[in-house]
Amino acid sequence: MLSTRMPSSAVENLASGRVFNFNAGPSVLPEEVLRQFQQDIWNFRGTGLGIMEHSHRAAPFQKVLEDAIADVRKIGNIPASYHVLFMTGGSSSQNFIVPANLLSEGQTADYIVTGYWGQRSFDDATQHAASYGGRVHLAASSKDTNHSYIPNAAQTRYSGPAPAYVHTTSNNTIYGTQWRTPSGHERLPELPAGTPVVCDACSDIFSRPIDVTKYGLIYASAQKNLGITGATVVIVSDELVQRASTKIPRMLQLRTYVKEQSMPNTPPAFTIYTVGVMAKWILDQGGVHTLLDRNVRKAGLVYDAIDKASAFYTPHARLEDRSVMNIVFRCNAGEAMDVKFTAEAAQQGLAGLTGHRAAGGMRASLYNAMPEAGAKALAGFIADFAQRNG
Amino acid sequence: MLSTRMPSSAVENLASGRVFNFNAGPSVLPEEVLRQFQQDIWNFRGTGLGIMEHSHRAAPFQKVLEDAIADVRKIGNIPASYHVLFMTGGSSSQNFIVPANLLSEGQTADYIVTGYWGQRSFDDATQHAASYGGRVHLAASSKDTNHSYIPNAAQTRYSGPAPAYVHTTSNNTIYGTQWRTPSGHERLPELPAGTPVVCDACSDIFSRPIDVTKYGLIYASAQKNLGITGATVVIVSDELVQRASTKIPRMLQLRTYVKEQSMPNTPPAFTIYTVGVMAKWILDQGGVHTLLDRNVRKAGLVYDAIDKASAFYTPHARLEDRSVMNIVFRCNAGEAMDVKFTAEAAQQGLAGLTGHRAAGGMRASLYNAMPEAGAKALAGFIADFAQRNG
Repeated sequence: MLSTRMPSSAVENLASGRVFNFNAGPSVLPEEVLRQFQQDIWNFRGTGLGIMEHSHRAAPFQKVLEDAIADVRKIGNIPASYHVLFMTGGSSSQNFIVPANLLSEGQTADYIVTGYWGQRSFDDATQHAASYGGRVHLAASSKDTNHSYIPNAAQTRYSGPAPAYVHTTSNNTIYGTQWRTPSGHERLPELPAGTPVVCDACSDIFSRPIDVTKYGLIYASAQKNLGITGATVVIVSDELVQRASTKIPRMLQLRTYVKEQSMPNTPPAFTIYTVGVMAKWILDQGGVHTLLDRNVRKAGLVYDAIDKASAFYTPHARLEDRSVMNIVFRCNAGEAMDVKFTAEAAQQGLAGLTGHRAAGGMRASLYNAMPEAGAKALAGFIADFAQRNG
Repeated sequence: MLSTRMPSSAVENLASGRVFNFNAGPSVLPEEVLRQFQQDIWNFRGTGLGIMEHSHRAAPFQKVLEDAIADVRKIGNIPASYHVLFMTGGSSSQNFIVPANLLSEGQTADYIVTGYWGQRSFDDATQHAASYGGRVHLAASSKDTNHSYIPNAAQTRYSGPAPAYVHTTSNNTIYGTQWRTPSGHERLPELPAGTPVVCDACSDIFSRPIDVTKYGLIYASAQKNLGITGATVVIVSDELVQRASTKIPRMLQLRTYVKEQSMPNTPPAFTIYTVGVMAKWILDQGGVHTLLDRNVRKAGLVYDAIDKASAFYTPHARLEDRSVMNIVFRCNAGEAMDVKFTAEAAQQGLAGLTGHRAAGGMRASLYNAMPEAGAKALAGFIADFAQRNG
């Protein structure tokens, strides 16, 4: 069992030698999870071998893999008609793995581009669509305002009544926008009937409930809400697996990972173990409903502080599309003030607040593992910094 | 600095709660390296963030990456005309990444198959050669004796005077054979002049000195001698990178990893960190010359014990091709005795000795991190078990 640790301030946190970590990914992990890692890499469950040293074919790791999948299923309420797979190469590799598997000859795949990574997904698919005999279509883009919003139905033009799939990005890490309802719950684009959605859910998977049956395929690299770098979790309907290509290399075929239970070769075993520990932690916290409540409270604290000092700060995202995970904002006084902000924050134990160069300013990532105390400490600093420099 | 730990017996080792680990990969890591991991995942170099939680773009990880590459260069004496890259997908993914990059239209790639993984490399390349407009040729195979030997020049027929490359496997993990000189040093096949060698060196990289300039490309997944699962180290000449394909997906192109310094996206950062720590450990041990001496001594202890009880055990590999890394042998009394052997060994703190199903019997992997005391304890058990059951 993992206990919950909730330091009451940044200062208290510093006593442990650790600071609050607002990095966008790789990112903060719960301290009780890190303690578990420390123990398990020396001697895993009394086997006399560390978890990193166990054969992936032996019983201890087999149990880790089975439990991780079972717990991911439990967290996401994932039905038996969907597979939970571990792949490699990060989400960027899904940019070619998805069309290589799912875009057949004569078909068109539609992309809704709401940020940097969505653009990369579109560009990479476009580059190789011809080699699959298919086409790629830009259904909507928020590029006109540097991705400060989520396009609505009127701004979206699909290629036709039956795209091979529609690709979306549920949360835009760099620009701090998110497909969501006013209460922070999941929201999908309006779609041509029967069209499978392929969703890049890297930066908000399991931060809130999802209805997996609305999707054809969801992918998420592990290093934000799910564990550490090195594995990509793929949740995919059996229907899509059945119709996926058999012409591409074996190690790229979705069906290979189904058939070989995510082990066509030595898998990224330690990363899979970390996903398992994080999944147990999520369940211990009360699951995704509890986490959504907590995440909305955390984001609320920070957005409120920004809004109360609106003469000093400007948030990047349009109000109704604000991300619960990544808060992007800047100082109205310009870049030098942004730099001062992140430097002073770091001195006070609030690390990783520099924004991505594509959006500028600051970015606070508030993934599941960020304690409420961290959000509170940041909100306090935001108010204080504005007062001192405004 | 990492200290050297050398328990004098299995019993002494058990006092630490850990056993001797003869797994083929993932496999044993030095205990001082595990202690380092435990420390760094809580608070890396006083940053207040664990190593798994640092942004891959921030200075602390950048230094980890640079140092890992510099130390790998130092260990392998790798000249500036070669790149050291970190890729993903394991060695099995190199089975299609290599021909996709290096097999051009009208060319033929030659494969020397000395084991299970070499066969897979050949099969995977064959499956897709046509899509690159190239061909694949089996130059030699030791399949006739279940891969108990390394083919000689007379047994090797190349496709012609200028194959695109010749693929070899330097050490055969499953069958326990190795391309080596009598003293255990590196050995390459005789080649058509000017032909680049592509070498799968997964299970013996940096267990001995190598002359990198004799190769075009060397790949090795990290989980045997180099760290943990999740990254593949690729050492490749700039000449091959320059002529590699630009028509395949960006995330599969060798040139992408050169240009983006192994970070076209979030890399398997923690695995790269483990390679860095292992590289420092290798240098602390005195480098690959010292390790070869130690590895030859370790293997000698075990082979001697097997040979002294030759009425009871049979080694799989031909004498002159015996691997210094993986020792494969079986009980003459049959499979039931093999099972008894591994079970009793496990009870005595000698874990992971079950052979791969393709070779049967037992397998003892003696990678760099296996202390001499482990080899000594195993040799003692081999003699004792034969005496008690012979």
